[in-house]
Amino acid sequence: MACPFCDKRVQDGFLSSENFVAIYNIAPVLPGHSLIIPKKHVESLFDFTDAEVAEFMVLGRKVAFLLTKALNTDAFDWAIQEKEAAGQSVPHVHMHVVPRKVGDLPNPGDWYQELEKSEVHIDSANRKKLNPEEMNSIVTMLRKKAAELNL
Amino acid sequence: MACPFCDKRVQDGFLSSENFVAIYNIAPVLPGHSLIIPKKHVESLFDFTDAEVAEFMVLGRKVAFLLTKALNTDAFDWAIQEKEAAGQSVPHVHMHVVPRKVGDLPNPGDWYQELEKSEVHIDSANRKKLNPEEMNSIVTMLRKKAAELNL
Ligand SMILES: [Zn+2]
Ligand SMILES: [Zn+2]
Repeated sequence: MACPFCDKRVQDGFLSSENFVAIYNIAPVLPGHSLIIPKKHVESLFDFTDAEVAEFMVLGRKVAFLLTKALNTDAFDWAIQEKEAAGQSVPHVHMHVVPRKVGDLPNPGDWYQELEKSEVHIDSANRKKLNPEEMNSIVTMLRKKAAELNL
Repeated sequence: MACPFCDKRVQDGFLSSENFVAIYNIAPVLPGHSLIIPKKHVESLFDFTDAEVAEFMVLGRKVAFLLTKALNTDAFDWAIQEKEAAGQSVPHVHMHVVPRKVGDLPNPGDWYQELEKSEVHIDSANRKKLNPEEMNSIVTMLRKKAAELNL
């Protein structure tokens, strides 16, 4: 089976480090919903060196900063699901970062149920996928904002 | 208001680094549910230096390794909620690490709803709290396992 994250190329991202890249979710549960992934296909968080974990998370924190600034808030969720028992669908390590606003969902934790629905049915019409124009406009905005913030 | 995580002392933890410590959740949503927290009261992930983020997450990954080994699985969830809009209740940065097993909950994502219920009602009788003997026995087991694994 093809890995949807290996199809992603670094130039699809909006912020990156040597070995990791931030991409916008094709079917965001909320505006700003992004993923930080290793550029190479890595299946488990345990396959990284400590230095790679550090690089991954420092980039993750930068992405959280960028997304909260771009979406004009200060709240975010940050989550990794390791292996199917934890809800992981695509076996390529990915960390979700989702900027949050008060009242964006009936309960703050509802994003996680939405995530699960979409992860289970990643190829179904369950959640609206962005078209290429929408994706391009968001990624362009985030790149501009990242440059503005010197990230 | 007193901070429940500032009341935690380093000696309550089962694994630590210079500035961070892993503690067992007083009201786990699932067996093994732990928290990694800064030893000092820090309210936002943005208040750490990059080196502290790295230290935090390298310890987090060690904790995930320890918990999966101790609970005899390979799956885990890893989550941070920043600010109330994201579901954060206690304003002292904390990362949840929860080892997972196939079928431990009806849907893998259900742990998050459970977390929310407990975070909202952290001082209610909503979720069973461990008594000091239960807590002590789990922390002792995890420390032993950490030593065994040279963590
Ligand atoms: Zn891949
Ligand atoms: Zn505190």
